[in-house]
Amino acid sequence: MQSTKPPSGTRDFLPEDIRRREYVIGVVRGVYERYGYEPLETPAFENIETLLGKYGEEGNKLIFKILKRGEHEASGSADMALRYDLTVPLARVVAEYQSKLPAIFKRYQIQPVWRADRPQKGRFREFFQCDIDSIGSVSPIVEAELLDAVSDVLQALKFNDFTIRLNHRRLLTALLEVAGVPEPSHGDALIAIDKLDKIGEAGVVKELSDKGIDGATAGRVLASFAVPADAAAGTLNLVLQGHGSGTAALKELWTIAGLTTSAATRIKIDPSLARGLSYYTGAIMEIAAPGLAGSLGGGGRYDNLVGMFLGRNIPACGFSLGLERIIVVMTENNMFPATLNSGAVDVVVAFMDEDSKSQAIAFASELRNERVRAEVYPELTKKFDKALKAATGRGAKYMAVFGENERASNQVSVRDLLKREALPALPRDRAAGEIARLLTS
Amino acid sequence: MQSTKPPSGTRDFLPEDIRRREYVIGVVRGVYERYGYEPLETPAFENIETLLGKYGEEGNKLIFKILKRGEHEASGSADMALRYDLTVPLARVVAEYQSKLPAIFKRYQIQPVWRADRPQKGRFREFFQCDIDSIGSVSPIVEAELLDAVSDVLQALKFNDFTIRLNHRRLLTALLEVAGVPEPSHGDALIAIDKLDKIGEAGVVKELSDKGIDGATAGRVLASFAVPADAAAGTLNLVLQGHGSGTAALKELWTIAGLTTSAATRIKIDPSLARGLSYYTGAIMEIAAPGLAGSLGGGGRYDNLVGMFLGRNIPACGFSLGLERIIVVMTENNMFPATLNSGAVDVVVAFMDEDSKSQAIAFASELRNERVRAEVYPELTKKFDKALKAATGRGAKYMAVFGENERASNQVSVRDLLKREALPALPRDRAAGEIARLLTS
Repeated sequence: MQSTKPPSGTRDFLPEDIRRREYVIGVVRGVYERYGYEPLETPAFENIETLLGKYGEEGNKLIFKILKRGEHEASGSADMALRYDLTVPLARVVAEYQSKLPAIFKRYQIQPVWRADRPQKGRFREFFQCDIDSIGSVSPIVEAELLDAVSDVLQALKFNDFTIRLNHRRLLTALLEVAGVPEPSHGDALIAIDKLDKIGEAGVVKELSDKGIDGATAGRVLASFAVPADAAAGTLNLVLQGHGSGTAALKELWTIAGLTTSAATRIKIDPSLARGLSYYTGAIMEIAAPGLAGSLGGGGRYDNLVGMFLGRNIPACGFSLGLERIIVVMTENNMFPATLNSGAVDVVVAFMDEDSKSQAIAFASELRNERVRAEVYPELTKKFDKALKAATGRGAKYMAVFGENERASNQVSVRDLLKREALPALPRDRAAGEIARLLTS
Repeated sequence: MQSTKPPSGTRDFLPEDIRRREYVIGVVRGVYERYGYEPLETPAFENIETLLGKYGEEGNKLIFKILKRGEHEASGSADMALRYDLTVPLARVVAEYQSKLPAIFKRYQIQPVWRADRPQKGRFREFFQCDIDSIGSVSPIVEAELLDAVSDVLQALKFNDFTIRLNHRRLLTALLEVAGVPEPSHGDALIAIDKLDKIGEAGVVKELSDKGIDGATAGRVLASFAVPADAAAGTLNLVLQGHGSGTAALKELWTIAGLTTSAATRIKIDPSLARGLSYYTGAIMEIAAPGLAGSLGGGGRYDNLVGMFLGRNIPACGFSLGLERIIVVMTENNMFPATLNSGAVDVVVAFMDEDSKSQAIAFASELRNERVRAEVYPELTKKFDKALKAATGRGAKYMAVFGENERASNQVSVRDLLKREALPALPRDRAAGEIARLLTS
């Protein structure tokens, strides 16, 4: 027998999964659109040369490639590849539609991407990314607006305790220079510092030493980077010893923080935030939540990437919300509104004899006109228990029943499925409105 | 220079495209959920053996296949394939989650599918399908409910003039038998009849004759199938001459039509509706609209397909709305609500000097709290014209301006961009509320 599981690393989304995801996406959309970000979507696959070489050697291996078709299928070669992130397609769109897009282009994009990673708990081969990017301006208002928007989203989703860690690519470089780390070792040093949370000071020193950075330098690195976040401003200015671009970068971070509104109280300038990606050129940011390893999202300014297909630099700043992780955290902490778990329908309508069928259908239609979710149990229900079981299984709150007695008395029998008791019979012509009222009260 | 177009047969969806699609999907979801259909989504790709052999020889060629990865990439063979329709994944889901799904499973699924067809006007390689299916019951209430739901969707989208063509697989067979078409020619005959609208009676006779069906038989076929839809009931009973399963099928269609509510006045029993797909086993249906070649959607009962992975028949009835075509028709006929074309933001806030920056940002935030879509023009606007041009380009209705004068007088200057005139300056503390009021009045 053939397997009926979804392919390794992918998921089927059953109704409750989709309700949760759509709820989060609805909140994200609503907030982002209030900030003037506009929706964009790109095809699931791109021409293969659009993607190859954009994600490094390791990335190339993780791209899903699509076989040529027809007579070329036998060649075994690929001409297209599945979307791997939302940034390269954005760069392509910016190049293709230059004349149609506004000079400052603010877009959000929420679509699945595919990566041939080894599947493991919480890591999938098909997963949603949720990006906002602002293209075309170097103003620090761009960063501030991104942070406010993201902060509004998380607050609307009832995250109360998050922190926005803020750092700057050139501040990182300055701190390494001041500590005396030779330029070729900057990358290694940043990787080590990024692990400070996980491996502690001793671990960082050991890793720096493994990379050939002596103990005295490692000590200075720690002294700079392990500055407690709250005290960062003053101390950092001391540490920087007047380093020009470092001081300017720090000032830029304070400017950004000062321009935020709803994000303002969340921001901590944190010199130990490195973020893995090498393409950032300015501010970098990440959302931390207490008790959560990893982040709820991150981003930063990257002025050299979006222009890749145009052969010139285009200023850009973006933020990627960890949509999948947000859903996991919200599920574990019961943060979804109770209405999301309200079953498939509110009312199941059953009929006890053939002659009551039309009544049942007409009544379900009346309920829908009252904006009640209603369905007819489509089989003849001689045995009341079977319909009752089906209605309960559907998560319905009420079951309405039509039979010979109801037709004779021009009434509807209604059962409250949560309280497991019958309501007093309702007059036929007022029953739909009455049930609608009960459901919203 | 590398091409920056999307791959052949695919599309980038810019903001206005997405707003239109999301509007239609929102209406579809709302109606289907009121009928108790629940959302389902499946991965973009399936294991290749799940799809191969399910769509005939021609279908196999049109499936996009994904190359194996890592050391197996060089083999040039594929292990997965992109979703080709929503029915085979549904059958897989029904098999996999039997114990979790209700005995009567009603789902809707709105996702893209991919087919390596030759791209042409209006035909894409990536396009959305929008299916509802009801699994597990043979009751004609299932068909009636589908038709009512689809009818409600189209009416909610302001389609006023559509017709639901209704026919039955066994009625088709009966009519061919009565006309004396030998069983092996039934398929050919149905293909010819299906073209009646396009090629007329003479064309059908010619095509039947090409397939070896003699003139007298062809005449009888036409006499049966070309019955005007409105007159179909009585005439068809005469034509059927007491044919057992044909008469029963016709009766079933009348039962279905009699069980509908909102669809009731739209239904025409139409013996010339054949629909291409061979898997239907009962009622078949299609939505026609005046002036529209082709349909807005179609479906029917197919009791032998959904159980394919379980090795047994499972009753099923489904309907696929032509989402892409619906969007085209609605665009061409201006059927979208005017609010969809309301630009990226309602208000652009500009600042004329550095000291006004924070005011501008705070004001944009106040506007958003009033549920107004607002953004700050992030560049310093010494030249008023540049900000004005940007604000107009964003589709904003108002531009609010902060400068030295506004700060001194504690006011906001507001320009109505549609009327191209300045409003009287607004007091700072009431300005956001006032603009919100203007936008909704």
